Amino acid sequence: MIIIGEKINGTRKVINEAILAKDQGYIERIAVEQAEAGADYLDVNAGTNPDRETDDMIWLLEIVQRVTELPVCIDSSSTQTLKAALEHVKKLPMVNSINADPHRLENFLPIISEKGCPVIALALDESKSGMPKSTDERLENISRIFGATRAAGISDDQLYVDPLIMSVSIDNTACVEALACIQAIRQQYPQAHITGGLSNISFGLPKRELVNRTFLTLAISAGMDSAICDPVNTAFIESLKATNMLLGRDRFCRAYTVAAKGGFVKK
Amino acid sequence: MIIIGEKINGTRKVINEAILAKDQGYIERIAVEQAEAGADYLDVNAGTNPDRETDDMIWLLEIVQRVTELPVCIDSSSTQTLKAALEHVKKLPMVNSINADPHRLENFLPIISEKGCPVIALALDESKSGMPKSTDERLENISRIFGATRAAGISDDQLYVDPLIMSVSIDNTACVEALACIQAIRQQYPQAHITGGLSNISFGLPKRELVNRTFLTLAISAGMDSAICDPVNTAFIESLKATNMLLGRDRFCRAYTVAAKGGFVKK
Repeated sequence: MIIIGEKINGTRKVINEAILAKDQGYIERIAVEQAEAGADYLDVNAGTNPDRETDDMIWLLEIVQRVTELPVCIDSSSTQTLKAALEHVKKLPMVNSINADPHRLENFLPIISEKGCPVIALALDESKSGMPKSTDERLENISRIFGATRAAGISDDQLYVDPLIMSVSIDNTACVEALACIQAIRQQYPQAHITGGLSNISFGLPKRELVNRTFLTLAISAGMDSAICDPVNTAFIESLKATNMLLGRDRFCRAYTVAAKGGFVKK
Repeated sequence: MIIIGEKINGTRKVINEAILAKDQGYIERIAVEQAEAGADYLDVNAGTNPDRETDDMIWLLEIVQRVTELPVCIDSSSTQTLKAALEHVKKLPMVNSINADPHRLENFLPIISEKGCPVIALALDESKSGMPKSTDERLENISRIFGATRAAGISDDQLYVDPLIMSVSIDNTACVEALACIQAIRQQYPQAHITGGLSNISFGLPKRELVNRTFLTLAISAGMDSAICDPVNTAFIESLKATNMLLGRDRFCRAYTVAAKGGFVKK
Protein backbone atom coordinates (compact mmCIF):
# COMPACT_ATOMS: atom_id res chain seq x y z
CA MET A 1 0.00 0.00 0.00
CA ILE A 2 1.24 3.44 -0.98
CA ILE A 3 0.16 5.91 1.68
CA ILE A 4 -0.28 9.57 0.81
CA GLY A 5 -0.34 11.54 4.08
CA GLU A 6 -3.24 13.98 3.82
CA LYS A 7 -2.72 16.28 6.79
CA ILE A 8 -0.85 19.28 5.31
CA ASN A 9 -3.87 20.70 3.58
CA GLY A 10 -4.57 24.44 3.61
CA THR A 11 -8.30 23.86 3.25
CA ARG A 12 -8.19 22.45 6.80
CA LYS A 13 -8.67 25.17 9.41
CA VAL A 14 -5.64 24.27 11.57
CA ILE A 15 -3.30 24.25 8.59
CA ASN A 16 -4.72 27.47 7.15
CA GLU A 17 -4.09 29.15 10.51
CA ALA A 18 -0.53 27.80 10.62
CA ILE A 19 0.10 29.16 7.12
CA LEU A 20 -1.31 32.58 7.99
CA ALA A 21 0.70 32.71 11.22
CA LYS A 22 3.82 31.37 9.46
CA ASP A 23 3.93 28.70 12.20
CA GLN A 24 6.81 26.70 10.84
CA GLY A 25 7.09 24.46 13.91
CA TYR A 26 3.53 23.18 13.53
CA ILE A 27 4.00 22.27 9.87
CA GLU A 28 7.28 20.55 10.75
CA ARG A 29 5.60 18.43 13.43
CA ILE A 30 2.75 17.38 11.11
CA ALA A 31 5.26 16.45 8.40
CA VAL A 32 7.51 14.47 10.75
CA GLU A 33 4.69 12.57 12.46
CA GLN A 34 3.28 11.43 9.11
CA ALA A 35 6.73 10.40 7.88
CA GLU A 36 7.46 8.44 11.07
CA ALA A 37 4.06 6.74 10.85
CA GLY A 38 5.00 5.32 7.46
CA ALA A 39 3.67 7.70 4.79
CA ASP A 40 5.16 7.23 1.31
CA TYR A 41 4.22 10.72 0.05
CA LEU A 42 3.18 13.87 1.90
CA ASP A 43 0.34 15.77 0.27
CA VAL A 44 0.92 19.53 0.33
CA ASN A 45 -2.02 21.83 -0.34
CA ALA A 46 -1.61 25.57 0.19
CA GLY A 47 -5.28 26.48 0.15
CA THR A 48 -7.34 28.06 -2.57
CA ASN A 49 -6.57 31.79 -2.36
CA PRO A 50 -5.08 32.57 -5.80
CA ASP A 51 -3.20 35.60 -4.44
CA ARG A 52 -1.27 33.47 -1.94
CA GLU A 53 -1.33 29.88 -3.17
CA THR A 54 1.98 29.79 -5.03
CA ASP A 55 3.97 31.55 -2.32
CA ASP A 56 2.37 29.49 0.45
CA MET A 57 3.01 26.28 -1.50
CA ILE A 58 6.71 27.09 -1.81
CA TRP A 59 6.89 27.99 1.88
CA LEU A 60 5.24 24.66 2.82
CA LEU A 61 7.40 22.61 0.44
CA GLU A 62 10.59 24.06 1.87
CA ILE A 63 9.56 23.23 5.44
CA VAL A 64 8.36 19.73 4.64
CA GLN A 65 11.44 18.80 2.65
CA ARG A 66 13.79 20.19 5.31
CA VAL A 67 12.43 17.85 8.00
CA THR A 68 11.61 14.68 6.02
CA GLU A 69 13.14 12.73 3.16
CA LEU A 70 9.77 11.90 1.64
CA PRO A 71 8.62 12.94 -1.81
CA VAL A 72 5.71 15.37 -1.75
CA CYS A 73 2.39 15.27 -3.54
CA ILE A 74 1.72 18.72 -5.01
CA ASP A 75 -1.97 19.32 -4.43
CA SER A 76 -3.20 22.21 -6.55
CA SER A 77 -5.57 22.92 -9.40
CA SER A 78 -3.44 25.87 -10.54
CA THR A 79 -1.03 25.33 -13.42
CA GLN A 80 1.02 28.29 -12.22
CA THR A 81 1.34 26.86 -8.69
CA LEU A 82 2.18 23.41 -10.04
CA LYS A 83 4.94 24.80 -12.27
CA ALA A 84 6.41 26.89 -9.46
CA ALA A 85 6.23 23.97 -7.03
CA LEU A 86 8.10 21.70 -9.42
CA GLU A 87 11.02 24.13 -9.23
CA HIS A 88 11.19 23.59 -5.46
CA VAL A 89 11.07 19.81 -5.03
CA LYS A 90 14.05 17.60 -4.17
CA LYS A 91 12.52 14.30 -5.29
CA LEU A 92 10.14 13.34 -8.07
CA PRO A 93 6.76 14.43 -6.67
CA MET A 94 3.27 13.11 -7.20
CA VAL A 95 0.74 15.54 -8.68
CA ASN A 96 -2.77 15.89 -7.21
CA SER A 97 -4.74 15.91 -9.53
CA ILE A 98 -6.12 15.53 -13.02
CA ASN A 99 -9.66 14.62 -14.05
CA ALA A 100 -11.55 14.23 -17.33
CA ASP A 101 -11.92 18.01 -17.75
CA PRO A 102 -10.25 18.71 -21.13
CA HIS A 103 -8.92 22.05 -19.90
CA ARG A 104 -7.18 20.46 -16.90
CA LEU A 105 -5.75 17.67 -19.05
CA GLU A 106 -4.45 20.17 -21.60
CA ASN A 107 -2.69 22.19 -18.89
CA PHE A 108 -1.33 19.39 -16.70
CA LEU A 109 -0.44 16.52 -19.05
CA PRO A 110 2.52 18.21 -20.81
CA ILE A 111 4.08 18.93 -17.39
CA ILE A 112 3.44 15.41 -16.06
CA SER A 113 4.72 13.86 -19.25
CA GLU A 114 7.89 15.96 -19.23
CA LYS A 115 8.71 15.33 -15.56
CA GLY A 116 7.50 11.70 -15.42
CA CYS A 117 5.47 12.36 -12.26
CA PRO A 118 2.94 9.96 -10.81
CA VAL A 119 -0.46 11.66 -10.83
CA ILE A 120 -3.79 11.26 -9.05
CA ALA A 121 -6.65 10.96 -11.55
CA LEU A 122 -10.13 11.69 -10.20
CA ALA A 123 -13.04 9.84 -11.81
CA LEU A 124 -14.95 13.06 -12.48
CA ASP A 125 -15.15 15.72 -15.16
CA GLU A 126 -14.75 19.12 -13.54
CA SER A 127 -16.08 20.83 -16.67
CA LYS A 128 -19.46 19.27 -15.96
CA SER A 129 -21.39 20.03 -12.80
CA GLY A 130 -21.39 17.77 -9.81
CA MET A 131 -20.03 14.38 -8.86
CA PRO A 132 -20.45 11.36 -11.14
CA LYS A 133 -23.76 9.62 -10.40
CA SER A 134 -22.86 6.02 -11.16
CA THR A 135 -20.05 3.52 -11.60
CA ASP A 136 -20.57 3.73 -15.36
CA GLU A 137 -20.12 7.51 -15.33
CA ARG A 138 -16.94 7.14 -13.27
CA LEU A 139 -15.56 4.50 -15.65
CA GLU A 140 -16.43 6.70 -18.63
CA ASN A 141 -14.48 9.62 -17.10
CA ILE A 142 -11.57 7.30 -16.29
CA SER A 143 -11.56 5.98 -19.85
CA ARG A 144 -11.29 9.51 -21.20
CA ILE A 145 -8.41 10.27 -18.82
CA PHE A 146 -6.46 7.16 -19.91
CA GLY A 147 -7.12 8.07 -23.54
CA ALA A 148 -5.46 11.44 -22.91
CA THR A 149 -2.58 10.21 -20.71
CA ARG A 150 -1.69 7.40 -23.12
CA ALA A 151 -1.74 9.88 -26.04
CA ALA A 152 0.64 12.07 -24.01
CA GLY A 153 3.04 9.16 -23.51
CA ILE A 154 2.26 8.80 -19.79
CA SER A 155 2.43 5.15 -18.72
CA ASP A 156 -0.58 3.61 -16.96
CA ASP A 157 1.47 2.89 -13.82
CA GLN A 158 1.99 6.64 -13.29
CA LEU A 159 -1.75 6.99 -12.66
CA TYR A 160 -3.33 6.79 -9.19
CA VAL A 161 -7.01 6.54 -10.02
CA ASP A 162 -9.39 7.86 -7.36
CA PRO A 163 -12.91 6.40 -7.82
CA LEU A 164 -14.38 9.15 -5.55
CA ILE A 165 -15.90 7.44 -2.56
CA MET A 166 -19.32 8.71 -1.44
CA SER A 167 -21.15 8.36 1.87
CA VAL A 168 -22.98 5.15 2.65
CA SER A 169 -25.36 7.09 4.91
CA ILE A 170 -26.55 9.15 1.93
CA ASP A 171 -26.64 6.23 -0.50
CA ASN A 172 -26.77 2.70 0.94
CA THR A 173 -25.11 1.34 -2.21
CA ALA A 174 -22.14 3.74 -2.06
CA CYS A 175 -19.71 1.11 -0.81
CA VAL A 176 -20.96 -1.66 -3.09
CA GLU A 177 -20.66 0.73 -6.07
CA ALA A 178 -17.19 1.84 -4.97
CA LEU A 179 -16.02 -1.77 -4.70
CA ALA A 180 -17.46 -2.56 -8.15
CA CYS A 181 -15.67 0.50 -9.54
CA ILE A 182 -12.36 -0.51 -7.93
CA GLN A 183 -12.68 -4.05 -9.32
CA ALA A 184 -13.45 -2.68 -12.80
CA ILE A 185 -10.45 -0.30 -12.73
CA ARG A 186 -8.17 -3.11 -11.51
CA GLN A 187 -9.37 -5.31 -14.39
CA GLN A 188 -9.36 -2.69 -17.17
CA TYR A 189 -6.11 -0.93 -16.17
CA PRO A 190 -4.06 -3.63 -14.44
CA GLN A 191 -0.91 -1.46 -14.32
CA ALA A 192 -2.61 1.56 -12.75
CA HIS A 193 -2.72 2.30 -9.05
CA ILE A 194 -6.02 2.87 -7.26
CA THR A 195 -6.16 5.40 -4.45
CA GLY A 196 -8.62 7.70 -2.75
CA GLY A 197 -9.70 9.45 0.37
CA LEU A 198 -11.68 6.85 2.26
CA SER A 199 -13.23 8.88 5.03
CA ASN A 200 -16.15 10.15 2.94
CA ILE A 201 -17.63 6.67 3.23
CA SER A 202 -18.54 7.30 6.88
CA PHE A 203 -19.87 10.86 6.56
CA GLY A 204 -22.92 11.33 8.79
CA LEU A 205 -22.44 8.10 10.76
CA PRO A 206 -21.39 7.41 14.35
CA LYS A 207 -18.04 5.68 15.01
CA ARG A 208 -16.60 6.90 11.71
CA GLU A 209 -13.20 5.34 12.38
CA LEU A 210 -14.79 1.89 12.56
CA VAL A 211 -16.56 2.41 9.23
CA ASN A 212 -13.38 3.77 7.61
CA ARG A 213 -11.18 0.87 8.76
CA THR A 214 -13.77 -1.70 7.69
CA PHE A 215 -14.12 -0.05 4.29
CA LEU A 216 -10.33 -0.02 3.92
CA THR A 217 -10.27 -3.81 4.29
CA LEU A 218 -12.98 -4.23 1.65
CA ALA A 219 -11.31 -1.72 -0.71
CA ILE A 220 -7.88 -3.37 -0.48
CA SER A 221 -9.50 -6.73 -1.10
CA ALA A 222 -11.21 -5.29 -4.21
CA GLY A 223 -7.91 -3.98 -5.62
CA MET A 224 -7.12 -0.59 -4.06
CA ASP A 225 -3.35 -0.30 -3.51
CA SER A 226 -2.98 3.22 -2.18
CA ALA A 227 -4.83 5.57 0.15
CA ILE A 228 -4.93 9.29 0.82
CA CYS A 229 -5.24 9.21 4.57
CA ASP A 230 -3.99 10.14 8.01
CA PRO A 231 -1.14 7.68 8.62
CA VAL A 232 -1.09 8.64 12.29
CA ASN A 233 -4.54 7.09 12.76
CA THR A 234 -3.80 3.82 14.57
CA ALA A 235 -7.12 2.11 13.76
CA PHE A 236 -6.60 2.74 10.08
CA ILE A 237 -2.99 1.59 9.97
CA GLU A 238 -3.57 -1.53 12.07
CA SER A 239 -6.44 -2.57 9.79
CA LEU A 240 -4.21 -1.95 6.78
CA LYS A 241 -1.42 -4.17 8.17
CA ALA A 242 -3.86 -6.92 9.19
CA THR A 243 -5.55 -6.86 5.78
CA ASN A 244 -2.27 -7.08 3.87
CA MET A 245 -1.21 -10.02 6.03
CA LEU A 246 -4.52 -11.82 5.60
CA LEU A 247 -4.38 -11.34 1.84
CA GLY A 248 -1.07 -13.24 1.82
CA ARG A 249 1.13 -10.20 1.10
CA ASP A 250 3.22 -10.33 4.27
CA ARG A 251 5.72 -13.18 4.22
CA PHE A 252 5.92 -14.93 7.60
CA CYS A 253 3.52 -12.22 8.89
CA ARG A 254 6.67 -10.25 9.63
CA ALA A 255 5.51 -6.70 8.80
CA TYR A 256 2.34 -7.23 10.83
CA THR A 257 4.14 -8.70 13.81
CA VAL A 258 6.80 -5.97 13.89
CA ALA A 259 4.16 -3.25 13.55
CA ALA A 260 1.98 -4.81 16.27
CA LYS A 261 4.90 -4.93 18.69
CA GLY A 262 5.47 -1.21 18.12
CA GLY A 263 1.80 -0.35 18.62
CA PHE A 264 1.39 0.10 14.82
CA VAL A 265 2.03 3.86 14.79
CA LYS A 266 5.00 5.73 16.27
CA LYS A 267 3.75 8.37 18.67
CA MET B 1 -25.53 -12.92 9.90
CA ILE B 2 -26.59 -15.84 12.03
CA ILE B 3 -24.53 -15.83 15.22
CA ILE B 4 -23.93 -19.04 17.11
CA GLY B 5 -22.72 -18.13 20.60
CA GLU B 6 -19.75 -20.37 21.37
CA LYS B 7 -19.14 -19.82 25.06
CA ILE B 8 -20.99 -22.72 26.73
CA ASN B 9 -18.43 -25.31 25.78
CA GLY B 10 -17.32 -27.99 28.24
CA THR B 11 -13.94 -28.30 26.56
CA ARG B 12 -13.20 -24.79 27.91
CA LYS B 13 -11.72 -24.92 31.41
CA VAL B 14 -14.10 -22.39 33.01
CA ILE B 15 -17.17 -24.19 31.69
CA ASN B 16 -15.84 -27.62 32.66
CA GLU B 17 -15.30 -26.34 36.20
CA ALA B 18 -18.80 -24.88 36.30
CA ILE B 19 -20.24 -28.21 35.16
CA LEU B 20 -18.26 -30.18 37.76
CA ALA B 21 -19.24 -27.72 40.52
CA LYS B 22 -22.87 -27.63 39.28
CA ASP B 23 -22.50 -23.84 39.20
CA GLN B 24 -25.86 -23.04 37.70
CA GLY B 25 -25.52 -19.27 38.18
CA TYR B 26 -22.38 -19.12 36.09
CA ILE B 27 -23.98 -20.99 33.17
CA GLU B 28 -27.05 -18.76 33.44
CA ARG B 29 -24.94 -15.60 33.22
CA ILE B 30 -23.02 -16.86 30.18
CA ALA B 31 -26.28 -17.80 28.46
CA VAL B 32 -27.99 -14.48 29.21
CA GLU B 33 -25.04 -12.31 28.21
CA GLN B 34 -24.77 -14.05 24.83
CA ALA B 35 -28.53 -13.77 24.25
CA GLU B 36 -28.54 -10.06 25.15
CA ALA B 37 -25.57 -9.45 22.87
CA GLY B 38 -27.58 -10.74 19.91
CA ALA B 39 -26.78 -14.46 19.48
CA ASP B 40 -29.25 -16.40 17.30
CA TYR B 41 -28.30 -19.83 18.68
CA LEU B 42 -26.43 -20.85 21.82
CA ASP B 43 -23.96 -23.68 21.31
CA VAL B 44 -24.04 -26.19 24.18
CA ASN B 45 -21.18 -28.62 24.54
CA ALA B 46 -20.99 -30.82 27.65
CA GLY B 47 -17.39 -31.93 27.25
CA THR B 48 -16.01 -35.20 26.01
CA ASN B 49 -16.25 -37.55 29.00
CA PRO B 50 -18.56 -40.33 27.73
CA ASP B 51 -19.60 -41.28 31.28
CA ARG B 52 -20.98 -37.79 31.94
CA GLU B 53 -21.68 -36.14 28.59
CA THR B 54 -25.38 -36.98 28.24
CA ASP B 55 -26.31 -36.05 31.81
CA ASP B 56 -24.26 -32.87 31.70
CA MET B 57 -25.79 -31.91 28.33
CA ILE B 58 -29.30 -32.23 29.73
CA TRP B 59 -28.32 -30.23 32.82
CA LEU B 60 -26.88 -27.47 30.63
CA LEU B 61 -29.83 -27.43 28.23
CA GLU B 62 -32.31 -27.04 31.06
CA ILE B 63 -30.43 -24.08 32.52
CA VAL B 64 -29.92 -22.35 29.17
CA GLN B 65 -33.53 -22.73 28.10
CA ARG B 66 -34.83 -21.51 31.45
CA VAL B 67 -33.05 -18.16 31.17
CA THR B 68 -33.19 -17.46 27.42
CA GLU B 69 -35.68 -17.92 24.61
CA LEU B 70 -33.00 -18.84 22.10
CA PRO B 71 -32.76 -22.15 20.27
CA VAL B 72 -29.68 -24.16 21.22
CA CYS B 73 -27.03 -25.75 19.07
CA ILE B 74 -26.42 -29.28 20.34
CA ASP B 75 -22.66 -29.75 20.13
CA SER B 76 -21.77 -33.42 20.45
CA SER B 77 -20.22 -36.23 18.45
CA SER B 78 -22.23 -38.81 20.37
CA THR B 79 -25.40 -40.17 18.80
CA GLN B 80 -26.68 -41.12 22.25
CA THR B 81 -26.14 -37.60 23.63
CA LEU B 82 -27.74 -36.05 20.55
CA LYS B 83 -30.83 -38.25 20.84
CA ALA B 84 -31.21 -37.54 24.56
CA ALA B 85 -30.68 -33.81 24.02
CA LEU B 86 -33.39 -33.70 21.38
CA GLU B 87 -35.85 -34.88 24.03
CA HIS B 88 -35.00 -31.83 26.15
CA VAL B 89 -35.22 -28.90 23.71
CA LYS B 90 -38.05 -26.38 23.54
CA LYS B 91 -37.30 -25.06 20.05
CA LEU B 92 -35.91 -26.63 16.89
CA PRO B 93 -32.18 -26.83 17.65
CA MET B 94 -29.16 -26.71 15.40
CA VAL B 95 -26.89 -29.78 15.46
CA ASN B 96 -23.08 -29.42 15.68
CA SER B 97 -21.86 -31.32 13.64
CA ILE B 98 -21.57 -33.69 10.72
CA ASN B 99 -18.59 -34.23 8.41
CA ALA B 100 -17.78 -36.50 5.47
CA ASP B 101 -17.09 -39.47 7.76
CA PRO B 102 -19.57 -42.14 6.52
CA HIS B 103 -20.09 -43.43 10.08
CA ARG B 104 -21.10 -39.99 11.37
CA LEU B 105 -23.39 -39.40 8.39
CA GLU B 106 -25.05 -42.76 8.88
CA ASN B 107 -25.71 -42.05 12.57
CA PHE B 108 -26.73 -38.38 12.38
CA LEU B 109 -28.58 -37.93 9.07
CA PRO B 110 -31.70 -39.97 9.94
CA ILE B 111 -32.13 -37.87 13.11
CA ILE B 112 -31.55 -34.55 11.31
CA SER B 113 -33.85 -35.58 8.49
CA GLU B 114 -36.63 -36.63 10.86
CA LYS B 115 -36.45 -33.49 13.03
CA GLY B 116 -35.67 -31.02 10.23
CA CYS B 117 -32.78 -29.50 12.20
CA PRO B 118 -30.24 -27.12 10.74
CA VAL B 119 -26.80 -28.74 10.99
CA ILE B 120 -23.19 -27.62 10.92
CA ALA B 121 -21.18 -29.53 8.28
CA LEU B 122 -17.41 -29.51 8.71
CA ALA B 123 -15.31 -29.72 5.54
CA LEU B 124 -13.32 -32.67 6.84
CA ASP B 125 -13.56 -36.44 6.92
CA GLU B 126 -13.08 -37.62 10.49
CA SER B 127 -12.50 -41.19 9.30
CA LYS B 128 -9.26 -40.00 7.70
CA SER B 129 -6.46 -38.55 9.76
CA GLY B 130 -5.87 -34.85 10.09
CA MET B 131 -7.30 -31.66 8.70
CA PRO B 132 -7.89 -31.21 4.97
CA LYS B 133 -4.75 -29.90 3.29
CA SER B 134 -6.22 -27.81 0.50
CA THR B 135 -9.32 -26.02 -0.76
CA ASP B 136 -9.86 -28.89 -3.20
CA GLU B 137 -9.84 -31.46 -0.39
CA ARG B 138 -12.34 -29.33 1.58
CA LEU B 139 -14.62 -29.01 -1.45
CA GLU B 140 -14.38 -32.74 -2.07
CA ASN B 141 -15.46 -33.46 1.54
CA ILE B 142 -18.27 -30.91 1.23
CA SER B 143 -19.43 -32.51 -2.02
CA ARG B 144 -19.67 -35.91 -0.31
CA ILE B 145 -21.65 -34.38 2.58
CA PHE B 146 -24.17 -32.75 0.20
CA GLY B 147 -24.46 -36.04 -1.68
CA ALA B 148 -25.48 -37.73 1.57
CA THR B 149 -27.74 -34.97 2.93
CA ARG B 150 -29.59 -34.59 -0.37
CA ALA B 151 -30.08 -38.37 -0.52
CA ALA B 152 -31.52 -38.19 3.01
CA GLY B 153 -34.02 -35.52 1.96
CA ILE B 154 -32.26 -32.73 3.89
CA SER B 155 -32.54 -29.41 2.05
CA ASP B 156 -29.36 -27.45 1.27
CA ASP B 157 -30.50 -24.50 3.37
CA GLN B 158 -30.41 -26.66 6.51
CA LEU B 159 -26.63 -26.94 6.13
CA TYR B 160 -24.18 -24.54 7.81
CA VAL B 161 -20.93 -25.41 6.05
CA ASP B 162 -17.75 -24.75 8.05
CA PRO B 163 -14.71 -24.50 5.73
CA LEU B 164 -12.35 -24.98 8.72
CA ILE B 165 -10.25 -21.86 9.03
CA MET B 166 -6.52 -22.37 9.68
CA SER B 167 -3.88 -20.02 11.07
CA VAL B 168 -2.30 -17.44 8.79
CA SER B 169 0.84 -17.49 10.96
CA ILE B 170 1.39 -21.17 10.14
CA ASP B 171 0.43 -20.86 6.47
CA ASN B 172 0.54 -17.39 4.88
CA THR B 173 -2.10 -18.47 2.33
CA ALA B 174 -4.60 -19.70 4.98
CA CYS B 175 -6.89 -16.67 4.61
CA VAL B 176 -6.66 -16.51 0.82
CA GLU B 177 -7.50 -20.24 0.67
CA ALA B 178 -10.37 -19.83 3.14
CA LEU B 179 -11.84 -16.97 1.09
CA ALA B 180 -11.53 -19.02 -2.10
CA CYS B 181 -13.26 -21.93 -0.34
CA ILE B 182 -16.08 -19.67 0.92
CA GLN B 183 -16.59 -18.23 -2.58
CA ALA B 184 -16.68 -21.73 -4.08
CA ILE B 185 -19.22 -22.97 -1.52
CA ARG B 186 -21.39 -19.86 -2.08
CA GLN B 187 -21.30 -20.51 -5.84
CA GLN B 188 -21.80 -24.29 -5.78
CA TYR B 189 -24.39 -24.41 -3.00
CA PRO B 190 -26.20 -21.06 -3.19
CA GLN B 191 -28.90 -22.12 -0.70
CA ALA B 192 -26.48 -23.33 1.98
CA HIS B 193 -25.24 -21.23 4.89
CA ILE B 194 -21.52 -20.78 5.52
CA THR B 195 -20.30 -20.58 9.10
CA GLY B 196 -17.22 -21.29 11.14
CA GLY B 197 -15.09 -20.44 14.11
CA LEU B 198 -12.99 -17.54 12.93
CA SER B 199 -10.47 -17.17 15.71
CA ASN B 200 -8.12 -19.89 14.43
CA ILE B 201 -7.05 -17.44 11.73
CA SER B 202 -5.07 -15.41 14.30
CA PHE B 203 -3.46 -18.28 16.23
CA GLY B 204 0.12 -17.40 17.16
CA LEU B 205 -0.17 -13.70 16.29
CA PRO B 206 -0.25 -10.56 18.42
CA LYS B 207 -3.45 -8.48 18.57
CA ARG B 208 -5.61 -11.47 17.71
CA GLU B 209 -8.84 -9.51 18.00
CA LEU B 210 -7.69 -7.17 15.22
CA VAL B 211 -6.89 -10.10 12.94
CA ASN B 212 -10.20 -11.80 13.74
CA ARG B 213 -12.32 -8.71 13.06
CA THR B 214 -10.48 -7.99 9.81
CA PHE B 215 -10.90 -11.58 8.68
CA LEU B 216 -14.61 -11.41 9.53
CA THR B 217 -15.02 -8.49 7.11
CA LEU B 218 -13.23 -10.40 4.33
CA ALA B 219 -15.18 -13.61 5.05
CA ILE B 220 -18.59 -11.88 5.00
CA SER B 221 -17.63 -10.17 1.76
CA ALA B 222 -16.71 -13.58 0.30
CA GLY B 223 -20.08 -15.10 1.23
CA MET B 224 -19.99 -16.25 4.86
CA ASP B 225 -23.38 -15.58 6.47
CA SER B 226 -22.95 -17.07 9.93
CA ALA B 227 -20.25 -17.28 12.59
CA ILE B 228 -19.53 -19.43 15.62
CA CYS B 229 -18.19 -16.75 17.91
CA ASP B 230 -18.29 -14.83 21.15
CA PRO B 231 -21.13 -12.34 20.61
CA VAL B 232 -20.02 -10.41 23.70
CA ASN B 233 -16.79 -9.41 21.94
CA THR B 234 -17.37 -5.77 21.01
CA ALA B 235 -14.63 -5.55 18.35
CA PHE B 236 -16.09 -8.53 16.55
CA ILE B 237 -19.70 -7.35 16.68
CA GLU B 238 -18.92 -3.77 15.67
CA SER B 239 -16.96 -5.01 12.64
CA LEU B 240 -19.86 -7.29 11.76
CA LYS B 241 -22.39 -4.43 11.88
CA ALA B 242 -20.12 -2.09 9.91
CA THR B 243 -19.46 -4.74 7.27
CA ASN B 244 -23.15 -5.53 6.79
CA MET B 245 -23.90 -1.84 6.42
CA LEU B 246 -21.08 -1.28 3.92
CA LEU B 247 -22.23 -4.26 1.87
CA GLY B 248 -25.62 -2.56 1.45
CA ARG B 249 -27.54 -4.89 3.75
CA ASP B 250 -28.64 -2.32 6.31
CA ARG B 251 -31.39 -0.07 4.95
CA PHE B 252 -30.83 3.57 5.97
CA CYS B 253 -27.86 2.30 8.07
CA ARG B 254 -30.41 1.82 10.82
CA ALA B 255 -29.11 -1.37 12.46
CA TYR B 256 -25.58 0.04 12.51
CA THR B 257 -26.64 3.40 13.91
CA VAL B 258 -28.81 1.87 16.63
CA ALA B 259 -26.06 -0.60 17.60
CA ALA B 260 -23.41 2.15 17.64
CA LYS B 261 -25.51 4.31 19.95
CA GLY B 262 -25.77 1.39 22.39
CA GLY B 263 -22.02 0.68 22.27
CA PHE B 264 -22.66 -2.36 20.01
CA VAL B 265 -22.83 -4.93 22.83
CA LYS B 266 -24.99 -4.81 25.97
CA LYS B 267 -22.75 -5.10 29.00
